[in-house]
Amino acid sequence: MRIVSLAGGIGAARFLRGLKAAAPDAEITVIGNTGDDITLFGLRVCPDLDTVMYTLGGGINEEQGWGRAGEAFTVKEELAAYGMEPQWFGLGDRDFATHILRSQLLSAGYPLSQVTEALCDRWRPGVRLLPMSDDRTETHVVISDGDGRRAIHFQEWWVRLRASVPAEQIALVGADEATPAPGVLDAIRDADVVILPPSNPVVSIGTILQIPGIREAVERKTVVGVSPIIGGAPVRGMADACLTAIGVETSAQAVLELYGSRLIDGWLVAEEDKDVALDGVVVEARPLLMDSPEATREIAAAALRLAGALPEIDG
Amino acid sequence: MRIVSLAGGIGAARFLRGLKAAAPDAEITVIGNTGDDITLFGLRVCPDLDTVMYTLGGGINEEQGWGRAGEAFTVKEELAAYGMEPQWFGLGDRDFATHILRSQLLSAGYPLSQVTEALCDRWRPGVRLLPMSDDRTETHVVISDGDGRRAIHFQEWWVRLRASVPAEQIALVGADEATPAPGVLDAIRDADVVILPPSNPVVSIGTILQIPGIREAVERKTVVGVSPIIGGAPVRGMADACLTAIGVETSAQAVLELYGSRLIDGWLVAEEDKDVALDGVVVEARPLLMDSPEATREIAAAALRLAGALPEIDG
Repeated sequence: MRIVSLAGGIGAARFLRGLKAAAPDAEITVIGNTGDDITLFGLRVCPDLDTVMYTLGGGINEEQGWGRAGEAFTVKEELAAYGMEPQWFGLGDRDFATHILRSQLLSAGYPLSQVTEALCDRWRPGVRLLPMSDDRTETHVVISDGDGRRAIHFQEWWVRLRASVPAEQIALVGADEATPAPGVLDAIRDADVVILPPSNPVVSIGTILQIPGIREAVERKTVVGVSPIIGGAPVRGMADACLTAIGVETSAQAVLELYGSRLIDGWLVAEEDKDVALDGVVVEARPLLMDSPEATREIAAAALRLAGALPEIDG
Repeated sequence: MRIVSLAGGIGAARFLRGLKAAAPDAEITVIGNTGDDITLFGLRVCPDLDTVMYTLGGGINEEQGWGRAGEAFTVKEELAAYGMEPQWFGLGDRDFATHILRSQLLSAGYPLSQVTEALCDRWRPGVRLLPMSDDRTETHVVISDGDGRRAIHFQEWWVRLRASVPAEQIALVGADEATPAPGVLDAIRDADVVILPPSNPVVSIGTILQIPGIREAVERKTVVGVSPIIGGAPVRGMADACLTAIGVETSAQAVLELYGSRLIDGWLVAEEDKDVALDGVVVEARPLLMDSPEATREIAAAALRLAGALPEIDG
């Protein structure tokens, strides 16, 4: 079986671990969000790709959900001693090595997709990890604060401000000119099913779907999504702040409508959201909390079973 | 008093600490060798500039003479886990931060001289530290081994091979097109005395003197050199391997002749080398081992006294 999954960071990475367990023989291609990528200290940082890679490769800080296990912060502290900003982004010493290597390879002219493959040679995540695009795109957020109305990098809003200032607008800069990375459209075309994990529907899955050609390719496939909202609250993170920014309610129903029935064929919701419904979508309610590896595997297995029970729509 | 000192790495840095102690009110400009500079993992490393900066700024690993005190090697080990070469160059985590910042500023278009000034804002070495040139030059060494006759970077010969393979030729690639960094020629012109510390006469001082215009400027000044050779052996390091490569004997006499009397006015040698002589040069014999801060200060003080006793040759 060939599975494609779009993926943000922490939530997707945990879900993907469950998906691998639920379908150990499947060929899984993960299309990762790179809208969160940021250049810090001259080094290119790809938080979502790295979270997937570290999590599936056994190097993640499990408690935190991002970054490497057993980190020290010597390099970051030294850069601070030089007066270098920003200090609000947590780069550990082990993690720095990944960004140094990535930046070296990018500077040498390799596209991000090949660089990601090279990094995965070490981590062996057990999936094929592709960035959504080799082109540089960046999610920016328009806010108003003491410094006036202005656009800041998503990470500055998300990490430094912890989304405490309302986002007036969220835009993927560079999206119009970007093309899917090599292999992305082929993987979607050849997939038996496309799974949307419970990632942020705006700045993770929504971002990937903005790369021209990806949404259209996914719409042609059997797509099962796992709701990132349970009973009106995000499974994790601050997805509500992103949904509010685009005028969408924080509910499993509203996220399903945001994605739409052209995209989604099956929709897994939590039991408290069992009344969610949309024409053309098969909705199934079940426990959705990824609170153990077993529970997560069962959610992924349920998504695959739901996909298998749907009418064939390939083409 | 205005003093200019040319400088290599460890030996120069220790000497300069003595010079600062011997002339606490002097304005000291240090012109550092950048021929040893190397790009590792995409980051620009300037070993001699950093050794001077860390030593005079209180951050040096005193036992080792280079690198930062209290280092761990997490980043280096992670890069090795990715299969990245080279692993023979010892970059610690604290040190990495310096190279990350330097590389970021160089990429942003700042010349090395301004980058060095920015780094010194933190370290406050108590001297003005200038790279010999903002242009990129690199010392390469021609060797013959199992892989045939070929040129390798000086650091590969010095650090990886520990100069165990004879150098057939040593060349500063890029020297002809390089120009002295801003401030270098002015500092020499305005100096009351130019001091050559006991640095490597081939790949440190010799390299600096190869930048067009520097030797000529120094020749016009009162110049006192401290012999890097005591009784036929280098004060430290493997200067003999470099001297042999250019057909020069490892002796205080031969190094003085290599520099020549157009350059050198006063020459400090160890007591066992008291018979060294060259027309036009005042030779003084005294203890030259830098085996304590006090002994080093006394050597520097002797160099300044010798300079003061020489006939005025400024012009």
